[in-house]
Amino acid sequence: MTLIGEQLDPTLGVRFNEAGLVCAVVQQYDTREVLMVAWMDAEALRRTVTTGAGTYWSRSRQEYWVKGATSGHTQRVVELRRDCDGDTLLVLVDQTDGACHTGDRTCFDAGLIARRDPT
Amino acid sequence: MTLIGEQLDPTLGVRFNEAGLVCAVVQQYDTREVLMVAWMDAEALRRTVTTGAGTYWSRSRQEYWVKGATSGHTQRVVELRRDCDGDTLLVLVDQTDGACHTGDRTCFDAGLIARRDPT
Repeated sequence: MTLIGEQLDPTLGVRFNEAGLVCAVVQQYDTREVLMVAWMDAEALRRTVTTGAGTYWSRSRQEYWVKGATSGHTQRVVELRRDCDGDTLLVLVDQTDGACHTGDRTCFDAGLIARRDPT
Repeated sequence: MTLIGEQLDPTLGVRFNEAGLVCAVVQQYDTREVLMVAWMDAEALRRTVTTGAGTYWSRSRQEYWVKGATSGHTQRVVELRRDCDGDTLLVLVDQTDGACHTGDRTCFDAGLIARRDPT
């Protein structure tokens, strides 16, 4: 991937929390579906940028995981952004098949809590 | 707002972290822009559902904040979802003007880190 602007800043302007993690919102780049939310530490961020494959830190398993390494449901990263205070990432990807471990396209498909008419 | 299904479950199926918070990804309901990420505790979630206005817990100020209460850049909540393991919310809103305190439409507008050609 092509780094923009802050190549000289090894943190890429990202502020990790007290556990050394940053929240990553993963969005399909063209349809703009929010696919999932995961966490990265500095090394997962570095691997994501250098390989172009969405790579995260599993808080439950305490290990790195390349999304789709087992399932084949990989994420090709197209764009990486951070928010205004640097404590959240937005990862725009091209997701192969479902992003959710349930087989759903997104991790939010089955989780409707409330809605109302937008008008 | 109309609650779906789990009205009898006061937690709405949400799993709060050890600090009593859940990460909330806020998305414009029609354009699907990811506007911002904030945090809710159970009371902020209850207020969001009952008032239909995006309401969060400020970790820095340690207080509730109704988005736009000061700026006028309010969020009318259209849909509320949780993810497959219940530890993240997706809040679809109709955002008035900019969601970011900088005046930008989203908190991610200025934060491009890396990109590549999607094809």
